[in-house]
Amino acid sequence: MKLIHDPIHGHIELDDFAVRLVDTPEFQRLRRITQLGLAFFAYPSARHTRFEHSLGTFHLAKRIREHNSEIEEGAVYAALLHDLGHYPFSHTLEALYPRHEENTKWFIRHGEIGDVVRERYSIEEFLKLLKHPLVSGDIDADRMDYLVRDAYYTGAAYGVVDLDRLVRNLCYDGEKLVVGEKGIIAAQSLLLARSMMYPTVYQHHVSRIASSMLVKAVELEGIPYREIRAMDEVDLVARLRKSEKPEVRELINAIDSRRLYKRVLYSGDDPGREFFEELGRELDAEFGHLVLLDYPPKPKFEEKNAFVVVGGMFKRLSEVSPLVRSLVELKDTHWRWGVYARADVVERVEKFLRAGFIP
Amino acid sequence: MKLIHDPIHGHIELDDFAVRLVDTPEFQRLRRITQLGLAFFAYPSARHTRFEHSLGTFHLAKRIREHNSEIEEGAVYAALLHDLGHYPFSHTLEALYPRHEENTKWFIRHGEIGDVVRERYSIEEFLKLLKHPLVSGDIDADRMDYLVRDAYYTGAAYGVVDLDRLVRNLCYDGEKLVVGEKGIIAAQSLLLARSMMYPTVYQHHVSRIASSMLVKAVELEGIPYREIRAMDEVDLVARLRKSEKPEVRELINAIDSRRLYKRVLYSGDDPGREFFEELGRELDAEFGHLVLLDYPPKPKFEEKNAFVVVGGMFKRLSEVSPLVRSLVELKDTHWRWGVYARADVVERVEKFLRAGFIP
Amino acid sequence: MKLIHDPIHGHIELDDFAVRLVDTPEFQRLRRITQLGLAFFAYPSARHTRFEHSLGTFHLAKRIREHNSEIEEGAVYAALLHDLGHYPFSHTLEALYPRHEENTKWFIRHGEIGDVVRERYSIEEFLKLLKHPLVSGDIDADRMDYLVRDAYYTGAAYGVVDLDRLVRNLCYDGEKLVVGEKGIIAAQSLLLARSMMYPTVYQHHVSRIASSMLVKAVELEGIPYREIRAMDEVDLVARLRKSEKPEVRELINAIDSRRLYKRVLYSGDDPGREFFEELGRELDAEFGHLVLLDYPPKPKFEEKNAFVVVGGMFKRLSEVSPLVRSLVELKDTHWRWGVYARADVVERVEKFLRAGFIP
Amino acid sequence: MKLIHDPIHGHIELDDFAVRLVDTPEFQRLRRITQLGLAFFAYPSARHTRFEHSLGTFHLAKRIREHNSEIEEGAVYAALLHDLGHYPFSHTLEALYPRHEENTKWFIRHGEIGDVVRERYSIEEFLKLLKHPLVSGDIDADRMDYLVRDAYYTGAAYGVVDLDRLVRNLCYDGEKLVVGEKGIIAAQSLLLARSMMYPTVYQHHVSRIASSMLVKAVELEGIPYREIRAMDEVDLVARLRKSEKPEVRELINAIDSRRLYKRVLYSGDDPGREFFEELGRELDAEFGHLVLLDYPPKPKFEEKNAFVVVGGMFKRLSEVSPLVRSLVELKDTHWRWGVYARADVVERVEKFLRAGFIP
Repeated sequence: MKLIHDPIHGHIELDDFAVRLVDTPEFQRLRRITQLGLAFFAYPSARHTRFEHSLGTFHLAKRIREHNSEIEEGAVYAALLHDLGHYPFSHTLEALYPRHEENTKWFIRHGEIGDVVRERYSIEEFLKLLKHPLVSGDIDADRMDYLVRDAYYTGAAYGVVDLDRLVRNLCYDGEKLVVGEKGIIAAQSLLLARSMMYPTVYQHHVSRIASSMLVKAVELEGIPYREIRAMDEVDLVARLRKSEKPEVRELINAIDSRRLYKRVLYSGDDPGREFFEELGRELDAEFGHLVLLDYPPKPKFEEKNAFVVVGGMFKRLSEVSPLVRSLVELKDTHWRWGVYARADVVERVEKFLRAGFIP
Repeated sequence: MKLIHDPIHGHIELDDFAVRLVDTPEFQRLRRITQLGLAFFAYPSARHTRFEHSLGTFHLAKRIREHNSEIEEGAVYAALLHDLGHYPFSHTLEALYPRHEENTKWFIRHGEIGDVVRERYSIEEFLKLLKHPLVSGDIDADRMDYLVRDAYYTGAAYGVVDLDRLVRNLCYDGEKLVVGEKGIIAAQSLLLARSMMYPTVYQHHVSRIASSMLVKAVELEGIPYREIRAMDEVDLVARLRKSEKPEVRELINAIDSRRLYKRVLYSGDDPGREFFEELGRELDAEFGHLVLLDYPPKPKFEEKNAFVVVGGMFKRLSEVSPLVRSLVELKDTHWRWGVYARADVVERVEKFLRAGFIP
Repeated sequence: MKLIHDPIHGHIELDDFAVRLVDTPEFQRLRRITQLGLAFFAYPSARHTRFEHSLGTFHLAKRIREHNSEIEEGAVYAALLHDLGHYPFSHTLEALYPRHEENTKWFIRHGEIGDVVRERYSIEEFLKLLKHPLVSGDIDADRMDYLVRDAYYTGAAYGVVDLDRLVRNLCYDGEKLVVGEKGIIAAQSLLLARSMMYPTVYQHHVSRIASSMLVKAVELEGIPYREIRAMDEVDLVARLRKSEKPEVRELINAIDSRRLYKRVLYSGDDPGREFFEELGRELDAEFGHLVLLDYPPKPKFEEKNAFVVVGGMFKRLSEVSPLVRSLVELKDTHWRWGVYARADVVERVEKFLRAGFIP
Repeated sequence: MKLIHDPIHGHIELDDFAVRLVDTPEFQRLRRITQLGLAFFAYPSARHTRFEHSLGTFHLAKRIREHNSEIEEGAVYAALLHDLGHYPFSHTLEALYPRHEENTKWFIRHGEIGDVVRERYSIEEFLKLLKHPLVSGDIDADRMDYLVRDAYYTGAAYGVVDLDRLVRNLCYDGEKLVVGEKGIIAAQSLLLARSMMYPTVYQHHVSRIASSMLVKAVELEGIPYREIRAMDEVDLVARLRKSEKPEVRELINAIDSRRLYKRVLYSGDDPGREFFEELGRELDAEFGHLVLLDYPPKPKFEEKNAFVVVGGMFKRLSEVSPLVRSLVELKDTHWRWGVYARADVVERVEKFLRAGFIP
C-alpha cells in the first residue's frame, strides 16, 4: 500500500495492484500529458497532468464502490486507466486523430501495462469496464475529479462541489449510478460548475487559438497515427521544432514564445458545416498556415440525463431541476467559431472575408 | 487605523471614523445577534454574527468605491451600519415586528452611534444612504459578503464566488451598480450560490421548525416592539426562560435542549393565505402552542434585475443569462409551508387535519 | 446514523448512540459555551462553540480508533463528552472555580446524559475513560481538533496541520498514543501551531483584559459554584446585567459595549506569587473594581513528552526534535502579567504603582 | 494592464511594461521549467513552473513597494526576471554548471528581453537590482511566493504563511527589508514553513534519486554550458532520449518510466568531502553509471539573519526568537548523503562498500 499526497483528496491510497499498474511506462507517460492542453496560456497555473487526474479518479471510484459493494472491483482499476490513451496536450489533437479511447485500448492490449492487467483480468473483459458508469456515466468519478481539480489549478472559483456528499449519495443499480435525493443539490452544483468552467476555462479563446496553431503544425508535419499515439509532449514538441518544414517550425516557435494569432472573426452564429468547409478551403488556398479556421463541436451536456431518485421514483435530473433544464438551453450560448490569423495578415484576411464570405 | 483579522477577507482595515462607529453600544450589540438565526441547529458551526458580516460588508463597499470614486464616502459607512437594527436571531422575528430596517434608523437617530454619525453627516442625509445601491441593490456588498461568509461557516460548498473579479467589474453609473462584461459569469455564480444556499441552508426545515417555536414563544410572551428592538439574544432568551407563562418556558426549554417539534405536513403547494389563516385559527383553538403553522413569504429574487453591460448596452442579467432566467423559474420550487407539532401530539394533529383540512 | 456538516472535517458521522448523547440538555448546553471565551473581542469571527469542537473531537477519536482497534469503544464516546463541564466562556472562570473536568463528571453522574451513558457503560468505568490518551494525552484528538478549528474561525494562518497524516500515524500501545516515524513532522507542526496560536490568539491582550473584567464581575456577584456550573452564557450574562451591585452592572455593561480597561502594566518578568498577592490586596484596597490584576498560569507544554517511534525505539518528541526543544524554551517568552484599569483612573494607578511597587 | 488568474494571489495585475517583458521568448521559456524539478515523482501534483512563480514574486514585490515608496521601481521588474536563467528542472543541474543567476544576466544582456529592459533602464544598472533585498534578501518576495506556492501544489500543509500580515510589516530602510514588530510571528512562521518543507518536499529522497540520475545522464552526454543554458525541458529530455550513448538513453528511459535507483546508503553523518571524492572515483571505476553518489550542499538558512524591529531597535530574528535559533540548530538534522544503485546491482554495491568503505 502506498500513500500519495494530493491537494484535492488529501491522500490517495494505492493498493499493490494499483501501484503495479502505475509503475509501467504507459502510465508514467501520463505525467507528460497536460490535463488542460494549452489552457496554461490563459491560466498559467494550469500545469496539472493526466497522471494526477487518473489517480484522483481512481480514488473517487474506490470511494463510490465502498458505498456500492455490488460494483465489480475491476471497474475501479479501469477508472485508473481510463485516460491512458490521451494524446500530447489531451483533447487538442482529437481534431486530427481517432478519439483517445482507442489508444487506451491499444496500450492495454499491447503495452507492459497489459501484462499487469492480465494477472487478474481477461483483457477483453477489462476493456469493457472502461465503459462502466463509474467512469463513463453522466455523473461519474472522472467528471467529479477533473472539475474540482481543474478549478483548483486554474484558481477558478466555479468548480467547487460537495464531493463528499455526492459520493455518499451515488447508488449503483446494476446499470448506472443514480443520485439519491440528498445528493441532488450536489449533483446540480457539479453540472453548474461544469457549465461555468466551459466558457471561462475550457473554451477560453487564448487556449483555442494556441490549440488551432498546434493542430495546424501537426497536420502540416503529417505525423502518422501509429507514431503520435505513443508520443508524449516532449516527443511531439521536439519533433515539431526539428521539422524540415519551415511553416511547422514557425508555428511551434510562435507557440513556444506565445506569439499567438489574433481573432479576425469570433462568432456564435453557426452557418453550417458546409460553409465552414468551403471557407476553410478558400482561406487555405489564399493564406496557407497564416490563417486558421476553428469550428469546434457543440457541447453535448449529457449529464442532464443523469438519473435521480425522488420520492422512490427514478427521474431524469433535467426533469426535477429547472436549473439543469436551463443549462441545456444555455449549453450553446458560449459556443463560438473563429478565424485566427498571424498578426501581420489580419487586415488582409479581414478584407478577404468581407469580399466574399461575410457581409 | 485598525486591522481586523477576518477569515473571509484576510484583513479588514478600519479607519478612525469606522472605529468610532464600531465602538458604540449599538454596534457592539451586533456581536450578540447570530447571522443565521437558529440555523445552527442544522449547521452547528454557523455561529457567526451580524458584527463580522457588517465589517465584511464595509470592506467590500470600500473596495467597490476604490474602483468608483464618484460613490460618496458616506455610503461606505452606511454599509457598515446597514444591519444595525436586526432583532435577536436576525430575520426570525420579522414575522411579528416591523422590518429590521426601521430599527436601524431608530438606533442611528437615537443611539450613541448617531452622535458619531452627526460629526460628519446630517442624520437624515445619512439615513438615505442606507438605500444606496452599494448595500441595497440587486448585486451589492451586503449580499456578496453574506453568501461567502455563510458558506464558510456552514461548510456548504455552494457559496464560492469570485469576489475579486466581481468587485473589479462593478461599475456605478450614478444610480446603480452595473456588472461589466467580464464580471457576468461571477455575477451569475453569485446568484447561483444564493439559489443553492436557499434550500440547503436558509430554508433548512430544522431551522424553520426551531424558528417557528421561537416566534410562538415571543408571541405568547407578548414583548412590546419598543422593548424587543433594543434586545440582544441574551436579553431575549433570559426573558423567555423567566416567563410567567408555562407555555413560553416550555418552548424555550425545548429550543435550548433541541427537542424540536416534528413535521406533520410539509408541502410546496400553496392553497392561499386565506386557507392558512383559517387553518391557523383552527389549529390554535384545538392545540394552542403545541402546533405551529409556518407559512413563509415566497423568495423574491430581485437580483435577476441587476443590470449588466454587454457590448456597450445595458441589459438585465436575466436577459443575457438563461441560467438566471431559470433561477427565476426555480425560485418557488423549494418554497414549503409546514405544520409542526410537539412529538406527543403528532398523531392527533394528523387526524385533525385529515378530518377537515387535508384530503 | 446522522451526518453533520462541518467546515473542518467535511461531514461528521454520528451513530445512534452518539445521537442520543448529543440530544440531551447537557450536551445541547455546549452550543451556548463559546470555545475561545472572550477572544472574539480580538478576533470577531471566533464565535464557534464547545458543541462543534466536541463533535470534531469525537470524529478524530473515531478515526484514530479505526487504525487502532484495541482502543475500547467507550473512549470514543468519552471523547465526545470530554468538554461537557465547561463554564460559560470556557476557561475564563476557572480562575475562580474548580476545573471544568469536575463538572463534566458531575453532569455525567447527575444529568439526563448519564442515563444514556448507563445504557452501555457503568458510570464509573466511563468516567475513567475521560482520561484516555485519545483525548487526554500529549497529542490527542482534542488538541488536534481545537487547533485547526480555532485557526479556521480566527482566520489565523498558523493552525494548519496535516491532520490526515497524523491520524494515520498515531499508534496506541495500550497505554498511550505514539507517533510513528512518518507522523513526526506532522506532530511537530501541531506543536508549532499551538505555540504560535498561544501569543497571537489564546493570550491576546484584548481577550485577557475582557476576561479579567468578567472574572471580577463574577467574583463580585459571588455566584456559588453549585449554581454556576450548570449555567450557560445566557444565564451568566443575564444574571450579571440584573445584579444588585452597581459595580457588577458597570463591568458587564463595559464588556457588552467593549469599553475595555487599559493596560497600565504588561510585563514578562515574574516577581513571584507573593508579590502579586500583596499588590492585588493593595490595588483592591485603593481602587476596588477599577483596577484588575492579571497573573495567568505559565503554559505547561506537556506535548513535548509525546512519544514517537524512531528506528523502532520509543523516544520523547523533544529528544528527536530540536524544534520541539526550543518550543519548551520558548514557552515562557510570551507569558505576561498585567495591571489593567478603567480609562479614567489609568494615570492615578500609574502614580500609585510608581510610588510603591514598581521602580 | 492585464489581469492574470492565480490560485495563490487571486489575480495578478501586470502593467504594460511587465506584459512586454513577459511576452518575450526568454520569459515564455520559463513555462517549460518545472519549479520543483523532479519532485513530481514524490508529489505528482507539483507541476508548477518558474513562470507562475515569477509572476507571483513580481506581485508580492509590487505590494511590498506600495508600503515602501522609496524602493525604486526597477526592483519590482527585477523581481519579475530574477529566475530567468534557471536550467531545465530548476536547481537540479547546478551540480554541473554555473549557478542560474549567471544565465539570468546572460539572457538579459543578450536576449530580446534585454531590448525591452533597455527602453527604461541601463542594463548594468538593472542587473544590480537582481540583488535587491526585495528579491534577494533573507525574507523577500521570492521566498514568500515559492513557499506558499510549493505548499499549494504539493498539498503539503506546512507552507501556510500569513503573507498579508508579513507584506504589511516589511519596511525598507534603504538597505534591507526589516520586519516590523507585528510581523515577527508571521516571519517566524515563514521560516518554520521552510524548515518543514525542506525534508518533506525539497529533499525528499525520491526526488533526490531521480535528480542524481538526471545529473549523471547530462554529465555523460557532455552538453556544453553554452548549449544547456538556453535549453528548456523539452530540449533537454529530447536530446537525452536521442543520445548516441546507450547509458544516457538507459538513464533517461528509467527516469521517464520511474524505474528509479534504490538507496544502498543514506546517512546523516558527514565524513568529509575528500572521502566522498575518493568514494565517487572508486564507485565510478567499478560500476560506472549504475551507481550514483549524492552529496548535496548543507542548507544555509540565512533567513536567521533577517532584521526585525523590537521596541524601536534593530535585532536579528534569531536573537529575538528561540524558535529561529533552534531552526539553525535543526538545519543539518535532515541533511543526508546517499549512494543509489540500479536495482539489480544493489547487492553487489553493498558488498563493495562493506569491503572497503563502510564498516
